[in-house]
Amino acid sequence: MTILVAVRGWKPDHWIHALRETAPNRTVVLPGDDFDPSSIRYALVWKPEPGYLKSFPKLEAIFSLGAGVDHLTTDPELPNLPVVRIVDPDLTGRMTEWVVLNVLLHHRRHAHYAAAQAEGGWKPLRQWAAGAVRVGIMGLGELGRDAARALTALGFKVKGWSRTEKRLESVACFHGAEGLAPFLAQTDILVSLLPLTTETENLIDRVVIDALAKDGPLGGPVILNAGRGRSLVETDLFVALQDGRLKGASLDVFATEPLPPDSPLWRAPNLFMTPHVAAESDPVALSRYVIGEIVAYEAGRPLRHLVDRNKGY
Amino acid sequence: MTILVAVRGWKPDHWIHALRETAPNRTVVLPGDDFDPSSIRYALVWKPEPGYLKSFPKLEAIFSLGAGVDHLTTDPELPNLPVVRIVDPDLTGRMTEWVVLNVLLHHRRHAHYAAAQAEGGWKPLRQWAAGAVRVGIMGLGELGRDAARALTALGFKVKGWSRTEKRLESVACFHGAEGLAPFLAQTDILVSLLPLTTETENLIDRVVIDALAKDGPLGGPVILNAGRGRSLVETDLFVALQDGRLKGASLDVFATEPLPPDSPLWRAPNLFMTPHVAAESDPVALSRYVIGEIVAYEAGRPLRHLVDRNKGY
Repeated sequence: MTILVAVRGWKPDHWIHALRETAPNRTVVLPGDDFDPSSIRYALVWKPEPGYLKSFPKLEAIFSLGAGVDHLTTDPELPNLPVVRIVDPDLTGRMTEWVVLNVLLHHRRHAHYAAAQAEGGWKPLRQWAAGAVRVGIMGLGELGRDAARALTALGFKVKGWSRTEKRLESVACFHGAEGLAPFLAQTDILVSLLPLTTETENLIDRVVIDALAKDGPLGGPVILNAGRGRSLVETDLFVALQDGRLKGASLDVFATEPLPPDSPLWRAPNLFMTPHVAAESDPVALSRYVIGEIVAYEAGRPLRHLVDRNKGY
Repeated sequence: MTILVAVRGWKPDHWIHALRETAPNRTVVLPGDDFDPSSIRYALVWKPEPGYLKSFPKLEAIFSLGAGVDHLTTDPELPNLPVVRIVDPDLTGRMTEWVVLNVLLHHRRHAHYAAAQAEGGWKPLRQWAAGAVRVGIMGLGELGRDAARALTALGFKVKGWSRTEKRLESVACFHGAEGLAPFLAQTDILVSLLPLTTETENLIDRVVIDALAKDGPLGGPVILNAGRGRSLVETDLFVALQDGRLKGASLDVFATEPLPPDSPLWRAPNLFMTPHVAAESDPVALSRYVIGEIVAYEAGRPLRHLVDRNKGY
């Protein structure tokens, strides 16, 4: 009943430590360790080598340790086993913090005040109310719904868009290809929390940018992306920031990470960037979550939050 | 039944316009206009000349158009009339936005990421959860309670301190001089929304700074002030930021406004400054609020939210 932790690009130490603290009676191994492949029942993974997970004949379930699952669904050799997404309040809360912070940075004109402070200038501007700002959230899973709740509580007018029809309390919801244009036309600040699928790849491009509302109080539309880098066309975003069709943007995710030093995005105006830290996976919180799911599964309960391979999330 | 609008330092145009839009049958005048002083029943004011309000023999009530009332209570010649504070959701919501934005700026280490972006560096840091951060709010009137609600909803551990005993749902409350030390000892981010009174003047000094928690996840305590500038000793704050006893600060209010060009605060490290715009008074929202209060008063209802001259707020 061994647990395998296979995380590329992350240090595994915190995960091993947190899992052993949580479940001291379980065996936890890393890819380089000496173990029998047929002993592995559960794999906790982040960006494992494509094809790697087919090497374990008795593997029963795969847990994705980050919010996205495209690192698994794009593996053509992924064994046909349950893939479990993390749906944990810790991860969700961190993403909501990032969304609220970045909506407020643009709404409250932080770039103006930071520049004024740097040059020693007292430059108050008139400020519109949150109720005058229409925030449109793309992706209405756990993350999108929690961000919608937090932004609504702060007084913003929140709308949502998703691939399939969803209903949220006090949030107008649009869906599908035919719902996209009316959703964008009433959005001042677009927040993408979309997963990466064949349908969302390059979805946010110049056509979407030009379909956003132009009559809002910010003086132009703003785009936030904390979903997946490849759902947004970075050159279209850069050009729109340069020529003023976009008033501002915030990016936590990029088509290539780390963002290459020669990317023009480093010099884009009115852009706030963070290095893919919006919703960091916390080893302690998520180890407890995964062990709790494993214990329930072994007691005969169904696994929850399974990825639909056809939809890609 | 004339309404007088006396606002120093603000342009009166928006106020006159909004009042006339709201109540077209009322006469609204400015100090320089030609009118009979005995026609004035209501004064809507912000920082009027000391002694000015005693010139109107039939004045019945004074409405303070900003969140603070010290601009009135410090006038030794203020006539003994009801002084009404603005308690409006628009004003409260704006202040909560500022508090949430600035708590998140420090919690999510915006200064680090802004500096990394400016130098083209991909520099992720580990991030603690909101639940590991203890926010202590000083001042538990309408503004403090609303900020406490919003921060609690984001997962922060919130405590409150006030002069007299207050009770808030799911917020531990301290009060009075004896409650201050235990409150500060458990506070990582201190948020002052205090009014300016003889008791709060210079209250936040080096003694308070050194009494804040030093064992929090931010690596040192942080102070936010959006109450009144003179409740904080600016030189003590500056020295503590310089020598690292304070990890960061955010100021919207200052002892002298506009902040003088030679103030050392312009160059203080890890300080976010805004030019007294945290909770701007919106003429449309507040004109409707004041007219509603006047209509109710003329119908025989008592005026609400009256200032206690002895307490000073």
